[in-house]
Amino acid sequence: MDDQRKKIMALREKLAAGGVTLGSWMQLDNSSVAEIIGNAGYDWVAVDLEHGHFSLSRLPDLFRALELGGTLPFARVAQGRTKEIKQALDAGARGLIIPMVESANMLADCISRAFYPPDGIRGVGYSRANLFGKKFDAYTASHRDGIFMTAQIETQKGVDHLADILKVPGLDAVMVGPYDLSGSMGMTAQFDDPVFKQTLAQILACCKAAGIPCGFHVVQPDPNALQEKIGQGYQFIAYGIDAVFLYAQARAPELG
Amino acid sequence: MDDQRKKIMALREKLAAGGVTLGSWMQLDNSSVAEIIGNAGYDWVAVDLEHGHFSLSRLPDLFRALELGGTLPFARVAQGRTKEIKQALDAGARGLIIPMVESANMLADCISRAFYPPDGIRGVGYSRANLFGKKFDAYTASHRDGIFMTAQIETQKGVDHLADILKVPGLDAVMVGPYDLSGSMGMTAQFDDPVFKQTLAQILACCKAAGIPCGFHVVQPDPNALQEKIGQGYQFIAYGIDAVFLYAQARAPELG
Amino acid sequence: MDDQRKKIMALREKLAAGGVTLGSWMQLDNSSVAEIIGNAGYDWVAVDLEHGHFSLSRLPDLFRALELGGTLPFARVAQGRTKEIKQALDAGARGLIIPMVESANMLADCISRAFYPPDGIRGVGYSRANLFGKKFDAYTASHRDGIFMTAQIETQKGVDHLADILKVPGLDAVMVGPYDLSGSMGMTAQFDDPVFKQTLAQILACCKAAGIPCGFHVVQPDPNALQEKIGQGYQFIAYGIDAVFLYAQARAPELG
Amino acid sequence: MDDQRKKIMALREKLAAGGVTLGSWMQLDNSSVAEIIGNAGYDWVAVDLEHGHFSLSRLPDLFRALELGGTLPFARVAQGRTKEIKQALDAGARGLIIPMVESANMLADCISRAFYPPDGIRGVGYSRANLFGKKFDAYTASHRDGIFMTAQIETQKGVDHLADILKVPGLDAVMVGPYDLSGSMGMTAQFDDPVFKQTLAQILACCKAAGIPCGFHVVQPDPNALQEKIGQGYQFIAYGIDAVFLYAQARAPELG
Amino acid sequence: MDDQRKKIMALREKLAAGGVTLGSWMQLDNSSVAEIIGNAGYDWVAVDLEHGHFSLSRLPDLFRALELGGTLPFARVAQGRTKEIKQALDAGARGLIIPMVESANMLADCISRAFYPPDGIRGVGYSRANLFGKKFDAYTASHRDGIFMTAQIETQKGVDHLADILKVPGLDAVMVGPYDLSGSMGMTAQFDDPVFKQTLAQILACCKAAGIPCGFHVVQPDPNALQEKIGQGYQFIAYGIDAVFLYAQARAPELG
Amino acid sequence: MDDQRKKIMALREKLAAGGVTLGSWMQLDNSSVAEIIGNAGYDWVAVDLEHGHFSLSRLPDLFRALELGGTLPFARVAQGRTKEIKQALDAGARGLIIPMVESANMLADCISRAFYPPDGIRGVGYSRANLFGKKFDAYTASHRDGIFMTAQIETQKGVDHLADILKVPGLDAVMVGPYDLSGSMGMTAQFDDPVFKQTLAQILACCKAAGIPCGFHVVQPDPNALQEKIGQGYQFIAYGIDAVFLYAQARAPELG
Ligand SMILES: [Mg+2]
Ligand SMILES: [Mg+2]
Ligand SMILES: [Mg+2]
Ligand SMILES: [Mg+2]
Ligand SMILES: [Mg+2]
Ligand SMILES: [Mg+2]
Repeated sequence: MDDQRKKIMALREKLAAGGVTLGSWMQLDNSSVAEIIGNAGYDWVAVDLEHGHFSLSRLPDLFRALELGGTLPFARVAQGRTKEIKQALDAGARGLIIPMVESANMLADCISRAFYPPDGIRGVGYSRANLFGKKFDAYTASHRDGIFMTAQIETQKGVDHLADILKVPGLDAVMVGPYDLSGSMGMTAQFDDPVFKQTLAQILACCKAAGIPCGFHVVQPDPNALQEKIGQGYQFIAYGIDAVFLYAQARAPELG
Repeated sequence: MDDQRKKIMALREKLAAGGVTLGSWMQLDNSSVAEIIGNAGYDWVAVDLEHGHFSLSRLPDLFRALELGGTLPFARVAQGRTKEIKQALDAGARGLIIPMVESANMLADCISRAFYPPDGIRGVGYSRANLFGKKFDAYTASHRDGIFMTAQIETQKGVDHLADILKVPGLDAVMVGPYDLSGSMGMTAQFDDPVFKQTLAQILACCKAAGIPCGFHVVQPDPNALQEKIGQGYQFIAYGIDAVFLYAQARAPELG
Repeated sequence: MDDQRKKIMALREKLAAGGVTLGSWMQLDNSSVAEIIGNAGYDWVAVDLEHGHFSLSRLPDLFRALELGGTLPFARVAQGRTKEIKQALDAGARGLIIPMVESANMLADCISRAFYPPDGIRGVGYSRANLFGKKFDAYTASHRDGIFMTAQIETQKGVDHLADILKVPGLDAVMVGPYDLSGSMGMTAQFDDPVFKQTLAQILACCKAAGIPCGFHVVQPDPNALQEKIGQGYQFIAYGIDAVFLYAQARAPELG
Repeated sequence: MDDQRKKIMALREKLAAGGVTLGSWMQLDNSSVAEIIGNAGYDWVAVDLEHGHFSLSRLPDLFRALELGGTLPFARVAQGRTKEIKQALDAGARGLIIPMVESANMLADCISRAFYPPDGIRGVGYSRANLFGKKFDAYTASHRDGIFMTAQIETQKGVDHLADILKVPGLDAVMVGPYDLSGSMGMTAQFDDPVFKQTLAQILACCKAAGIPCGFHVVQPDPNALQEKIGQGYQFIAYGIDAVFLYAQARAPELG
Repeated sequence: MDDQRKKIMALREKLAAGGVTLGSWMQLDNSSVAEIIGNAGYDWVAVDLEHGHFSLSRLPDLFRALELGGTLPFARVAQGRTKEIKQALDAGARGLIIPMVESANMLADCISRAFYPPDGIRGVGYSRANLFGKKFDAYTASHRDGIFMTAQIETQKGVDHLADILKVPGLDAVMVGPYDLSGSMGMTAQFDDPVFKQTLAQILACCKAAGIPCGFHVVQPDPNALQEKIGQGYQFIAYGIDAVFLYAQARAPELG
Repeated sequence: MDDQRKKIMALREKLAAGGVTLGSWMQLDNSSVAEIIGNAGYDWVAVDLEHGHFSLSRLPDLFRALELGGTLPFARVAQGRTKEIKQALDAGARGLIIPMVESANMLADCISRAFYPPDGIRGVGYSRANLFGKKFDAYTASHRDGIFMTAQIETQKGVDHLADILKVPGLDAVMVGPYDLSGSMGMTAQFDDPVFKQTLAQILACCKAAGIPCGFHVVQPDPNALQEKIGQGYQFIAYGIDAVFLYAQARAPELG
């Protein structure tokens, strides 16, 4: 588990030096899918517990398959509640992505749920994360260093409170949720609308000013779109989704 | 997915014309059971996420099996919280049955969680419901028309606030929960008690007055009981439960 | 486990005294279904490993659910091969139903695969049946008494060799497979054909003469059909199938 | 189900007479593990829904496997929310262990969620606990007698409010959570710290004064540690965890 | 089920008219993957029971997900044994692909295992394929028309006996297995070796002469390779594999 | 995958140098159990596909969990048939343990099924073992070096033919199956019988003479028994079984 903490700390250093971290996203509940994406060259892969349908008992298998390929297992939780944060971390998640962050208080609560006392209120216990207690001490010591916390900004309200949100201790990165953000602005998926683009620019600038890396989910796999986002200054980037990778390639060719 | 929305809209029209819709109920986590009931002639089948024990990863399989038989997949959620409403809909549920509705506010919150902006606050994202984004536009457009919302009235408090509850925009039907209602009245399962019967009549009358179809769960499969309920004016009727169908038939005959 | 052997021995005594044993049949892979049927009053329930789709890892759960209701777990294997007989018994099956028995040799081989040395060649090892070794001695001692062996006669060839088949040591009962038997006779499911009926009578008479109880699967749940079979002299009777129980009851009533 | 209630009532009597009840703990989602521990001589086994990773659909199988060995199925819930209490009980749990109890109000709410009206607000419905309605009356009558309620005291705040917590009607036992308690005191896992030991003594004394049995989780399997706890006056004791039992024995011996 | 038979018959007509049928291949045990590929425009999708790892209980869910998208569910069995052919068909497979066919006898045996009497010896019974008996008559009548039989030629021995193999009644198509064929020729995956290419040409010519459509598995998704194969005269073509589609797209782009 | 081959080759070298390799055994279908035993210090762990109940789809998860701890995944197959050998290896098994080997021919057939052409007849294809083709070349090259083949001698007939069995090319080790061997000798589990002990000595001597390491399964975890076996000259040793480890520790202590 020590190795995982080192990787998280290296991730922070890369971002602090202005670098980019590339991760990916899972919605298919299958651990061979996880092993494939875990071997595809990403720093981390987020299991989407918000819009995906994963049974709790499947998390350890998915995380093991990601780890086996040398990739850090992250979880995008559904709401940031105590139970789901505890259970994602106890299964071995090394990063959490909190959706719909709209205030500093809400984020501070979520971060508090993720850290053991005295840094927070996460329940202390044996679980898969510490190999059911066998690696309890190694996992628990400096535990906070080994968890990467990301806040999704994906509503107008979140944008309005961004400056405060960025001050919450323990926050490692921000990530834009383009579908929800456009939805909350009354322009679902109209990503070329100038107002939407301006809001994105505002978020990015605010993050830069606060020294917090800003991120984006490039949902459709397209290296050009990825380079564009990097060029704009995004550093914490999710690329694609397992199901999207699959159907992008799987379409039956037209027979002439 | 378009087809499903058409079916929901046809359901509303049938009810508006005074007709009856017949559905059924599942508590057994097995998708061959779903395929059997999906082929049994019901308009919809509700997967009972309150008293049943279904893992989240099983919902898509159950819903696919129901859809394959031409039946609309509904979900009776456990409490109407954000996470479970989002995940039931993302799995493909086309109707939600909210238990223990006791106030207009509570119902309005639940309905808000079920609709995309600007109609509500449901998270916008790729999921099984839109085939992981492949059918995103078709699913999202006029999305609200394709979700059928039912409130269960099953406490005295719910009865007391029924008039207000019936005014909440987006409500499609009301459904009595006889076990809980009798329990909250201190007469668990005493369905022949005159006070209980009077309460039922009051609910039915209140719904009629508001122009909202009233429903009932005829738990024990009995065509006569069903006809009686229809005769009384109930329009949105759940008939039986998979497990009850099973043990009603499965009892070993006495050997003479 | 001792209790189970006693039940099997009591079953044999009941049959030897001319009595009838009533069991049922499972094709749905769900252990709540097993618990329901395990509580429905049958002596035994056969999990259908031939036409059902059960993963190997599910057998212990299904058998535990049957046992919890006091019902003996049986397995109808797919072909009577070494591996499946060993694995059904190791999971805790107390009776085996061998399909398509067509010769004394084939049956003797199957029975040999079911008994430990020196009675047969079943592999000796720790498994769920002996609680992973914790109940090894209790399970192993007089093990043969605790396994009920049934041969299905369901082809013309099986009928032709029935007299020899009935002489195989260790055979407890015979069971007619009406669908396959009619199929092999070129009259699939024409159960009222006089030639078919005559063949049934011939099987029954042959069993009586050999002192081996004859059985039948009354597939459609119908107490009259059951009584008729008992009246004809069948003693080892399977009644219904879980899926058939379910859809027989689950059909949506016609709305007038 | 009647039998289970009798066992719960006998448990209460044993404790009231000053006796000790010994249970165990599960974090591995496997029902053969449950059958093994269910046969190991404990009064009850708690499935850990807080730090373990159990899918909802697995609870009935785990509980059946425990019951088959004559052991009472308990659940340690994650937070004591309505949904998880309802679903653990509906799956057949006969005891609930509520973590992080910090006030009388919080405990009273949890207990209210566990009992049917008029004792509480638990939803009344068919479920696995009443064999999907087949045993509804037997299960429902005097239902409250058949559920054992335990509050975990594992924060300083819980200790501070212990006297009030102990007065909540329906509470059967208290259980110390040593890891969390030490964490909340700023001395994670320093179980020999005199301040920590004094706090334990304070809890025990407070329980004695209130006439409520006090409990402890002896996490590392060690009969001497167990005897020490009994000697100190603990009555409601969890011994070991499945995963800990396993790795304590499974370590590869050093080859000389 | 009638619809499925019509589709199989239309497939045969298309091939008889010289047309091409395009299918795909699954090795990932996940039914959302099946739904995605079932919606990708293929005539059929083969679940690979030889090199994939699918539990038996998963087949019905995978087949339902394929059917829901209007795609025919096929199975590539592991060896063509009685048990696996029966269970694939009972789960609803409408086509079978038999690996390593090396003689006319072996193929005739496999085909015999797939058809009900009098066409073959497949066991007659209720199963998912006939909705547990509810659609027994519709499924059973003219059953043979509704099953598409494909033989894989993938060893030198199979090539040597191809002329005889092509005469076996009931054979619908032949499919080359390039990896195994090259392996058996001592040139694993050397698809450009002239001897290998000559063998492919020989197979194709032999099939043409016999009037049996010849097929190929274009494993790497590449429309040009597909067109090349069509140009060469292959008619029954599998395109890609789910896992290959996935990792072909999922590779993390190089960051400049 | 290269790493795994290196480990197998190192294992062979250790044995060739007279060293001892220690592995363990799994019968519980749970991948957290696999992760725990994979971290317990063994060279390899055999998943028992003979007496355990593992669904095919579970093998990749179990093997990944073992690999994550740095332990080689082995499989004890049920019978050594083509399908199960192919599927265990395709799931990633790096060693096979063949039960009930009774002749050189039988063993040669099994070994042939495990190696790709030209060394054998194993089907060549994409699968989890080669990451669905992504690591096809690395896995396939010198593939034979990376598979460890063990024959179980556990019948009198196997003992009688041992000298011939030991000459089969590709055999890496022999392992005694004490339960079955004693059973086949008419003295089930009477391990202290002098005739049984003499047979063990005979096997050991025969292996020494042939230069093939001999192995044993020390079923009950007991370091002294292990040292005794090593002292006798056994080199390939399985120690314990997951379920046995568990219940050896899990027994409830007697309360004085
Ligand atoms: Mg979002
Ligand atoms: Mg209710
Ligand atoms: Mg049959
Ligand atoms: Mg705690
Ligand atoms: Mg092949
Ligand atoms: Mg053996």
